[in-house]
Amino acid sequence: MKRNIYLSKLTLKDAREKFYKNLLNHKLAQPLKGELVSTEDSLGRVTAEPIFAKISSPYYQAAAMDGVVVRARDTYGAYESSPTILKINQNFHFVNTGNPIPFGFDAVIRIEDINLLNKVGKEKSSYISGGFTDNLREENIKEIKIFSAVSPGQHIRNIGEDVVANQLIIPINHKIRPVDIGALLAGGVNQFFVHKKPKIAIIPTGDELINPGKEMIPGKIIEYNSKIIKGLIYEWGGKAIIYKIVKDIPLDLKRILLEAVSQNDVVVVLAGSSAGSKDFTCEIIKSIGDVLVHGVAIMPGKPTILGIIDDTPLIGLPGYPVSAIISAEQFLKPLVFSQLGLAVKRREEIKVHMAHKVLSHLGDEEFLRVKLGDIDGKIMAYPLSRGAGVVTSLVEADALIRIPLLKEGVDFGEEVEAELLEDLNRIKNNIIVTGSHDLILDILRNELQEEFSDVNLVSFNVGSMGGLLALKQKRTHLATAHLLDPKSGEYNFPYIKRILPQRELIIVNLTFREQGIMVKRGNPKNIKGIDDLVKKDIKFINRQKGSGTRVLLDYLLKKKGINPLNISGYSQEEYTHLMVASAVADGNVDAGLGILSAAKVFGLDFVPVIKERYDIIIPKEYYSSLKIQKILAIIKSRKFQKKVLSLGGYDLSQSGKVIEA
Amino acid sequence: MKRNIYLSKLTLKDAREKFYKNLLNHKLAQPLKGELVSTEDSLGRVTAEPIFAKISSPYYQAAAMDGVVVRARDTYGAYESSPTILKINQNFHFVNTGNPIPFGFDAVIRIEDINLLNKVGKEKSSYISGGFTDNLREENIKEIKIFSAVSPGQHIRNIGEDVVANQLIIPINHKIRPVDIGALLAGGVNQFFVHKKPKIAIIPTGDELINPGKEMIPGKIIEYNSKIIKGLIYEWGGKAIIYKIVKDIPLDLKRILLEAVSQNDVVVVLAGSSAGSKDFTCEIIKSIGDVLVHGVAIMPGKPTILGIIDDTPLIGLPGYPVSAIISAEQFLKPLVFSQLGLAVKRREEIKVHMAHKVLSHLGDEEFLRVKLGDIDGKIMAYPLSRGAGVVTSLVEADALIRIPLLKEGVDFGEEVEAELLEDLNRIKNNIIVTGSHDLILDILRNELQEEFSDVNLVSFNVGSMGGLLALKQKRTHLATAHLLDPKSGEYNFPYIKRILPQRELIIVNLTFREQGIMVKRGNPKNIKGIDDLVKKDIKFINRQKGSGTRVLLDYLLKKKGINPLNISGYSQEEYTHLMVASAVADGNVDAGLGILSAAKVFGLDFVPVIKERYDIIIPKEYYSSLKIQKILAIIKSRKFQKKVLSLGGYDLSQSGKVIEA
Repeated sequence: MKRNIYLSKLTLKDAREKFYKNLLNHKLAQPLKGELVSTEDSLGRVTAEPIFAKISSPYYQAAAMDGVVVRARDTYGAYESSPTILKINQNFHFVNTGNPIPFGFDAVIRIEDINLLNKVGKEKSSYISGGFTDNLREENIKEIKIFSAVSPGQHIRNIGEDVVANQLIIPINHKIRPVDIGALLAGGVNQFFVHKKPKIAIIPTGDELINPGKEMIPGKIIEYNSKIIKGLIYEWGGKAIIYKIVKDIPLDLKRILLEAVSQNDVVVVLAGSSAGSKDFTCEIIKSIGDVLVHGVAIMPGKPTILGIIDDTPLIGLPGYPVSAIISAEQFLKPLVFSQLGLAVKRREEIKVHMAHKVLSHLGDEEFLRVKLGDIDGKIMAYPLSRGAGVVTSLVEADALIRIPLLKEGVDFGEEVEAELLEDLNRIKNNIIVTGSHDLILDILRNELQEEFSDVNLVSFNVGSMGGLLALKQKRTHLATAHLLDPKSGEYNFPYIKRILPQRELIIVNLTFREQGIMVKRGNPKNIKGIDDLVKKDIKFINRQKGSGTRVLLDYLLKKKGINPLNISGYSQEEYTHLMVASAVADGNVDAGLGILSAAKVFGLDFVPVIKERYDIIIPKEYYSSLKIQKILAIIKSRKFQKKVLSLGGYDLSQSGKVIEA
Repeated sequence: MKRNIYLSKLTLKDAREKFYKNLLNHKLAQPLKGELVSTEDSLGRVTAEPIFAKISSPYYQAAAMDGVVVRARDTYGAYESSPTILKINQNFHFVNTGNPIPFGFDAVIRIEDINLLNKVGKEKSSYISGGFTDNLREENIKEIKIFSAVSPGQHIRNIGEDVVANQLIIPINHKIRPVDIGALLAGGVNQFFVHKKPKIAIIPTGDELINPGKEMIPGKIIEYNSKIIKGLIYEWGGKAIIYKIVKDIPLDLKRILLEAVSQNDVVVVLAGSSAGSKDFTCEIIKSIGDVLVHGVAIMPGKPTILGIIDDTPLIGLPGYPVSAIISAEQFLKPLVFSQLGLAVKRREEIKVHMAHKVLSHLGDEEFLRVKLGDIDGKIMAYPLSRGAGVVTSLVEADALIRIPLLKEGVDFGEEVEAELLEDLNRIKNNIIVTGSHDLILDILRNELQEEFSDVNLVSFNVGSMGGLLALKQKRTHLATAHLLDPKSGEYNFPYIKRILPQRELIIVNLTFREQGIMVKRGNPKNIKGIDDLVKKDIKFINRQKGSGTRVLLDYLLKKKGINPLNISGYSQEEYTHLMVASAVADGNVDAGLGILSAAKVFGLDFVPVIKERYDIIIPKEYYSSLKIQKILAIIKSRKFQKKVLSLGGYDLSQSGKVIEA
């Protein structure tokens, strides 16, 4: 019953080995032939030859200081108590740094270590007219006094002090840095051979693709994978050419592939995301070249094709963006580096602890994107969305964790290796906020980034209860919550007492905000309150269990004696106010409970229900830390408050204040 | 008696604080105003605004797999043992990944999980014509069998799965990476505001400067500092414009400064290297703006000027290249980053152990350039040339060690912090070779780099005795030596027995080579052998004590009963064969003892004296390591040997063979 879509799924290691063995056999993974560049324009290029100095630097004996050049033997016998007098031209000459040493002279004495016999003082005017010592020369100084003997060679730069002619300055396969340019020019090397940059064709394919900015019709997908891959190739040191989108017409693809392999060093085909189109690409390649690998046991990245057409390496990347990036990193990056003559630099790896359990598919190596946070000196890893189509998971990721082929997952608290994508110092400045979602958190994050570039707010929207639980399990710095206690009518404290009885916490109000029913603009179904949600023609969208908004809804329904099962859509859940608003705006859904600000950004109408308190819960031990104080400073700032109030539905009268139980 | 050249020498910290406080007061260190860029062209730019999604991605409900879209409720009751039959259009539609979900449908079943009732097999031909499931559609399939129930939402990508409209995608002051471009395009953001790149004028000054490629006359210095600084600015994200060299004419400099400050965000003046010219620059700045700092207590980098002219920050960098780079890193880099809205990323720091004692000037913070090597798990730091004019010291450096203001130096073996300039993995692959110098080592280094990009040969030319001593003190992996024992006439072994009695060593021959007297082309002084060195009109250049060549000379002189003091220049020492050859070629010196290959590269004549053995001494515990075996593999390779033999004067008949005592 199962179809074998892939020719043969290989492990990552086997796929890489098979591909590279074949490329090496065809001499396709070696550095490309050299081209001449001028040294001045060589930044970032890779040497295709060892570079030897053409001249020495300095290429003449030079004064290393401003002062006078002397013969060391003329200075013997000079002491502080019995100075020696030297005569100009005969015993000394004035020199500036860099001046050549006259024949027969062998030492320099600094200008500040001599006395001028006719006592010209340090008058400002004397510095203005073209150099300091030149000026002394003009002042007609004939004699100087020196106070100690010097040895031959003092303050003299010998020929070749920096570079000796014919010395190796830079070996082959070296990426040129700014300082290398200086050393090469110093050594008289004004041009040299570098490896040609690999030229890489990127061919997006698929009827469903449209270019950014074109009209969007359901079924059409914005083609942006090519732009990501182009950016990566540029960062690796290659050159990328994005081809026009090729429609799903086999003869077109065939023609364009043949053209591309004749003009490029590597060809990358971006497959349409359907298995159908992929197989079709594969068949085309087979008809004009060799398919070496079709399917790799990695997730994301499985539907990768590796082949050779007309002595040109070909890589077929999957259609989902994260798959395409992971696959490109594994197969395209090492190829680009080989063709440049460089070794791929391994990413820094550190030990981290899983903040959540993750089940992984047996038989695939998974590349899990994680955010990292330093909780009490332990780096915790927070799995981000695992969807191959969720490109923002890579935008947010601080690291990749590889779950091996034959491992079924990673456990909560388990120690694993993480490949860093972000600087460790920056990671340590992440502030993890877990709990209820509010649009204010985006503003807070952005203001923090603007004011204190060293502090990054990372928020996980798992609902108010999730936030308290994360505090209990020590996998967050802060929690956010707006949990209404049905019995007391009090916010947060009853829950905190129950869930976190042992922990010393400080509760700071972030805002009071309006909760209500978000409805389509104009309120076409005329929804007036919670009671209307049970109406037959009204489709509702709910928030997930454990969210404060869900708690609120259930409280209101109970109070009114409404059976949740009578609400159509009660079991359909979204995780944020924006997701709920988006569902209502989009037409499939009529109503959802949420905050006014979310309704406003989607242009929805809003039926107010309640004004509620939304707090930040801060462990006492963090409260006085600089990170947290920076957050509180932002919260209390006029700039932040102005931006929040412009969203609508917020009352900041208590914002930043500690709330006592 | 002392002259106060600098207005006031400040510590690095004070200088930075004073400069930045003034820049902040004048609003000169804040991010530059924004300019609109298209998302596609935004790689490496820094956001000048928070960027919110304009649309959701996906912006419609889409199939996440190829297969059929169904209503979940139609599948309830399907089991492997009792499959359910679904009818096309009524109960299911074929979909490709990315296709929109038709109204009323709510789940996707993968194509590999269904049976097609009229059993179209997996024929290759069916994949060729434009998409897999399209093809099934064409094949007129009317019914499918399914074998298990599915739940609503299965294999469906909801609207906003990746990005929800109005969600913050990227905060302000974020440097755009390839994946960010993808996320922004997915969110419908096709253009946005980035901070303008700081535009930085670089003005080289000084009568002594000439551009690369121009005729070189003693006293003229090749101007390459501007190219280094330009490269650094480019790497930091700024834009640099190199001005024409300004001669030491005050009115010219004044005019050009005024022009530059009116057209740039920062102006960098590269001072001529003389204190005179510097003071002159300083006076000019004072006449048209403010000098905030003149002289910083760092080494190299002391003669730095920091000021403001017409609301434009001005940085005067010292004339020596290393000074200019260190000063630019300390003052220009943070300014460029501030104007870009970025925080400077701190370099990774590790603990290292000094391989040599270094005395440092009290009252200056020294930036010591060091090479690093992993000796038995301990990272050792080898100080490189400390000359401010030795730009190759930064080319070779793996790290910087800062010797604090009030510390007089660092001791042999002392543990200190090192700021890494090079990747730690690469540093760990350095092979430290200490001892006698030979041109072969350059070739060996280059071949290793070409064949095994992961192994770097680092050679310290301290003479044969120095090599043995380094082995004894465990601060080298390998030693090279050609030490002739006067008593036995044997090479190396007698010395090794005396200096390293306890250590198990393997001695591998690298080459036999010709030592002789290098003389000017045509041998104008008609030198025929060692005896001629005492002649009055012959100026000799010697090698340093402890070098094998010096040992050889002293042995020969003693054998012939020649008093070294009768040789003019006997006390003048150089450290390598090339330095000696260069001194002879350059005209001041008539003769030096050295190897044929060095004489040949400088076009010198050569009077043969002796053929000697030159060995590599390898501690037994390293011998079988991969690094060392890679070296031995290169030594025995035909390619290496061919290159060596082309230099002349080498006999490789025993090369790579273990020599027994």
